Amino acid sequence: MEWAELNYWISMAGTVAFAITAVLAVTPKGVDIFGAAVLGIITAIGGGTVRDLILGVPVFWADDLSYIWVALGASVAAFAASALFKRKEIYSLMLYVDAAGVSLFAIQAARKVWDLDFGLPLAPILLGIVTAIGGGLIRDVLAGRQTLLMTRELYAIPVMLGCTLFVILLEFFPMHRTVGGMVCVVLIFLLRAAAIHWKLAVPDWLATSRS
Amino acid sequence: MEWAELNYWISMAGTVAFAITAVLAVTPKGVDIFGAAVLGIITAIGGGTVRDLILGVPVFWADDLSYIWVALGASVAAFAASALFKRKEIYSLMLYVDAAGVSLFAIQAARKVWDLDFGLPLAPILLGIVTAIGGGLIRDVLAGRQTLLMTRELYAIPVMLGCTLFVILLEFFPMHRTVGGMVCVVLIFLLRAAAIHWKLAVPDWLATSRS
Amino acid sequence: MEWAELNYWISMAGTVAFAITAVLAVTPKGVDIFGAAVLGIITAIGGGTVRDLILGVPVFWADDLSYIWVALGASVAAFAASALFKRKEIYSLMLYVDAAGVSLFAIQAARKVWDLDFGLPLAPILLGIVTAIGGGLIRDVLAGRQTLLMTRELYAIPVMLGCTLFVILLEFFPMHRTVGGMVCVVLIFLLRAAAIHWKLAVPDWLATSRS
Repeated sequence: MEWAELNYWISMAGTVAFAITAVLAVTPKGVDIFGAAVLGIITAIGGGTVRDLILGVPVFWADDLSYIWVALGASVAAFAASALFKRKEIYSLMLYVDAAGVSLFAIQAARKVWDLDFGLPLAPILLGIVTAIGGGLIRDVLAGRQTLLMTRELYAIPVMLGCTLFVILLEFFPMHRTVGGMVCVVLIFLLRAAAIHWKLAVPDWLATSRS
Repeated sequence: MEWAELNYWISMAGTVAFAITAVLAVTPKGVDIFGAAVLGIITAIGGGTVRDLILGVPVFWADDLSYIWVALGASVAAFAASALFKRKEIYSLMLYVDAAGVSLFAIQAARKVWDLDFGLPLAPILLGIVTAIGGGLIRDVLAGRQTLLMTRELYAIPVMLGCTLFVILLEFFPMHRTVGGMVCVVLIFLLRAAAIHWKLAVPDWLATSRS
Repeated sequence: MEWAELNYWISMAGTVAFAITAVLAVTPKGVDIFGAAVLGIITAIGGGTVRDLILGVPVFWADDLSYIWVALGASVAAFAASALFKRKEIYSLMLYVDAAGVSLFAIQAARKVWDLDFGLPLAPILLGIVTAIGGGLIRDVLAGRQTLLMTRELYAIPVMLGCTLFVILLEFFPMHRTVGGMVCVVLIFLLRAAAIHWKLAVPDWLATSRS
C-alpha cells in the first residue's frame, strides 16, 4: 500500500471515528436522528472547513464529498446502533481511531498552511489546532455541552506540540518533509493514546479550578 | 405580479418573520433593544451568510441591504410592540410567514449551489439546511438557548426533504427547474405548516431521550 | 510620534487588554493554560477575523503575526499572574485600555469597509460592531458564559454610535476623514469610559427583564 493510499484510509477512518464519538457524545442529551447526523457531519468536517475559510481557499470537501457521505453513514449507524458503539471495547477502539484521525488531520493542515506560505510560523500550528478540535467545539456549542477548552483533557495540547515540532522540522530539514510529517503524526498519536490509556489530564498547577 | 417580484416579496416577508420570531424568542431571557436588534438581524441573514462564506462568493446582502434594513426595522418593532406580536393570532401568522420564508430561502440556496456546480449532489441539500436554520442556530447560541438541533421540532427535516427532492428534479428534469423549484417550496411549506398546525414532532423511535 | 505609529501602539495595547480581560473572565470557570491562551487569542483576533471573512479579504493577522504573538504572551502572563492582574487598580486600567482598543478597532474596521465600498452605509457600522465584540462573543460561547448581547452593559452601543457618526462624517466631509476618525475614536472611548466609571447600563425601558 502506498503512502497516499494509507493517508486516505486513515482520513476516512478518522472521519468515521469523529462522527461516531460525536453522536455518542450528544445522544445522552436527547437528540433525534436528524440532529445526530448534522452534529456528526459538523464534527467531522467543521474544523477543516473553518481552516479553509480562514485560508481563503475552497473548502476541502467540495471536491470530494466522500468525507460527508462517510460522516453521514457513520452518524446514522452510531445513532441506530448506539448500544453496540457504547460497548466498552468498541468505544475504546473509536477513541484510538479518533486519535489517529486527529493526528493525521492536524499535520495535513499544518502542511497545507505551510505550502500556502500563510502566516508562518504561527499559523500552521494554530490552524492545525483549529482543524483538529474546531468541529468538536462547534458540536459542543450547538449541543449545549461544555467545550473541550474548559476541560483539562489532553486533546489539543498533543496537537500543538506535534504541529510545533513539524514547523521546526520543515524550517530546518525541508528535504525530509514526508518523514518529518510521519514522525509528527506518530508523536501526536502516541501522546494522545497515552492520555486516553492513562486518563492523563493537565496538572493542577497549569489550571485554575472552578470558583 | 411576476414570479421574480413574488419571490422578492416572499423574501422580505420571510425576513420580517425571521426577525420577529427571533426577538420574541429572546425577550423572555432578558435583553435590551440593541441585543434584540443584533439577534434579529443575525437570525435573518446568518444562515445565508454562512452559506456564502462556504461557497466562497460575496455575501448576498452586500449588494442589497434591504434584507438588513427590513430585519432591523422588524426587530425594533417586535421589541417595542412585543405585547402585540405575542398575541396568539399574530404570533401564529408569523410562524406561517416564517415557514414560507424558510421554504423559499432553502430552495433559493439549493439552486444557487447547484448553479455554482458546488459539491453536487450533497452540498445543495446541506447548504439549503444551513441557509434555513443557520441564523436561528447562531441566535440561540448567542442567547444561551437550547438550539433547534436538540429539540424534536419538525423544522429542518422538511427543508431536507424539499431540497433532496429539488436536487432529484434538477438532475432528471433540468428543463422544468422553475416549476420544480415552486413544487419544492410548496412541499416544504406544507410539511412545515402541518408541523405547526398539529404540533408534530420527531417520533420517539427516531430520537433518544435526555438521560 | 506619528499618527500611524500611535495607531500601531494603541492597537497592540488594545490586543493586550483584550487578551488579559478574556483570561480573567474565563479563569473563574476553571480552565488550563492552553484553554486560556486559545480563548485569549480568539478574543483578541476573532472579531476582525469574522469581519475579514465577510468582506472576502485576507485575514488581517496573516501578514502581521504580532497581533497573535502579543495576545499569546498577554494571555500566558494573565494566566500565570492572575492575582496581579486581578488587583483593582490594574484590572481597572485594563478596562480602560480595552475601551481604547475597542474604539480604535471599530473605527479602523468601519474605514476598511468604507474603502472597500462594501454594503454602504450599513455594513461599516455592522462590521465595526462585529470587529469590536465578535471575539468576545466567540470566547463567551466557547467558555459557556452568558454573552454580552444578553447583558445590559454599555459596550456595543457606544461602538454603534461612533461608527454611525463616522459614516455620516465620511459621507458629508470626506476631506476630513482622518480628523473625523480621531473624533469618533475619542467619542467611543469617552462613552465607554463613562460606562465603566459610572457603571452605566441600558435603562429599564429599553430592556426586557428575564421572565
